[in-house]
Amino acid sequence: MNNIIDGVTASLELKKNIKKEIEKDGLTPSLAVIMVGDNKASKIYVRNKKKACEMVGINFTEINLPETISEELIINEIRRLNEDDLVNGILVQLPLPSGFDEGKIINEISPLKDVDGLTYQNVGNLVLENECLVSCTPMGVMELLKMYNVPLKGKDVCIVGRSNLVGKPLIQLLLQQDATVSICHSKSVNIKDYTKRADVLIVAAGHPNLITKDMVKDGVVVIDVGINKENDSLCGDVDFKEVSKKASLITPVPGGVGPMTVASLLKNVVKAYRVQNR
Amino acid sequence: MNNIIDGVTASLELKKNIKKEIEKDGLTPSLAVIMVGDNKASKIYVRNKKKACEMVGINFTEINLPETISEELIINEIRRLNEDDLVNGILVQLPLPSGFDEGKIINEISPLKDVDGLTYQNVGNLVLENECLVSCTPMGVMELLKMYNVPLKGKDVCIVGRSNLVGKPLIQLLLQQDATVSICHSKSVNIKDYTKRADVLIVAAGHPNLITKDMVKDGVVVIDVGINKENDSLCGDVDFKEVSKKASLITPVPGGVGPMTVASLLKNVVKAYRVQNR
Repeated sequence: MNNIIDGVTASLELKKNIKKEIEKDGLTPSLAVIMVGDNKASKIYVRNKKKACEMVGINFTEINLPETISEELIINEIRRLNEDDLVNGILVQLPLPSGFDEGKIINEISPLKDVDGLTYQNVGNLVLENECLVSCTPMGVMELLKMYNVPLKGKDVCIVGRSNLVGKPLIQLLLQQDATVSICHSKSVNIKDYTKRADVLIVAAGHPNLITKDMVKDGVVVIDVGINKENDSLCGDVDFKEVSKKASLITPVPGGVGPMTVASLLKNVVKAYRVQNR
Repeated sequence: MNNIIDGVTASLELKKNIKKEIEKDGLTPSLAVIMVGDNKASKIYVRNKKKACEMVGINFTEINLPETISEELIINEIRRLNEDDLVNGILVQLPLPSGFDEGKIINEISPLKDVDGLTYQNVGNLVLENECLVSCTPMGVMELLKMYNVPLKGKDVCIVGRSNLVGKPLIQLLLQQDATVSICHSKSVNIKDYTKRADVLIVAAGHPNLITKDMVKDGVVVIDVGINKENDSLCGDVDFKEVSKKASLITPVPGGVGPMTVASLLKNVVKAYRVQNR
């Protein structure tokens, strides 16, 4: 039985569709990424985003700023990009070096160009079910569930992790699909009580092997958002080897949610382009 | 054993404190309420808000607009109040008569004056844990839990109902207190599985007798946000008579959450005043 959710193939399909859409409708979307300092992991992520943009026909600009720059100058750069009609999406690569106020900087991005869906305006409109740009990883998770026809209406969905980037937006997206949602986190006492009952378990906690096979029921759908480094290799938050024996569907790490995040970013850039040009 | 949460007394205490604060610091907060049409229940609610404002020393203005008014003129009125430095809080009494776009109208209110916490800016900032104005009923619920020393950290809290006004803001407020949160709603299949395990059960569904004694565990804390009319008397969403036998604490309806909502509104007006005058 093949119960592996193939995020690589799914994301390729998404990208193909985006590329087709851009060509067919003659769109000229563009993304600007601001990178402060030279965090090694961030550099790899930015390179992946660049490659993906080029693959589908999104114009990509990278703005590299030194770690020693002032908050004010970063904000000036964002304001310049907000004003630039040729830039449709703006993304500040996180994490910023320590000392910067990420929330303050992010909220300088025009909500119409906030393709990471992190400004308070987009976060609020997501809750209120208004048109908005949604954070890319949760979007990717929802896209995978849809592509694999996982029913959500009335289903028990457990989210482990309550970050602004993943857990909190997922609450809203899952409620919109009429799931019954529970949210566990580092202060939860009885995580297993919740995970064990879940029809769909989404884990975004950042702890390797947090979810073991005794914590899930047979037939569960497992989405592992964690990316952890162990002995020079990547792993998620789920004990994949054992949990995959019980799951009806499960994402691997790498090759699960990760590629979908980038594909969702592309989708957001095109959406932002359309909203700005209608 | 007295296990009744007395919202009337709790709200009186809150109001007393607000009155003291206003007098001591020489504050001059003011609230403007826009009422469209003459919905009977709304009129009672507005009258209660007026009385409460007068009691604590908040200047109260009521703006009555006819049901036949255009959306544009309501919005003009809001914009005028946004500009008026003597008005600190603006509230559009809901529901509006049918035909009006409530979301659009509400979002015209300056987020700094949005004392109902309903604009997308305040909703987003609540999620991101930034300074904001929070919806009054959820605030009142949290205040009651605090006043009655109900522990929340690591506790299992079940919310029944996912409205923008009550259920959704409660998710955020409870997560901020480190509760494990589950949200059930009309499409949930196994509500009882969740309610039965809850240490704290908050019900805001609008269905009389939705929660029966077989659905809760011994010692549960029950907060009943529902206000339903049955045979000319008010009742909540919980079968109070039976559930109160198992609960360690429970709110009555009326006299539970209701009075706290108005007290929270007063708190928000003072907060808005302070933010606007700092």
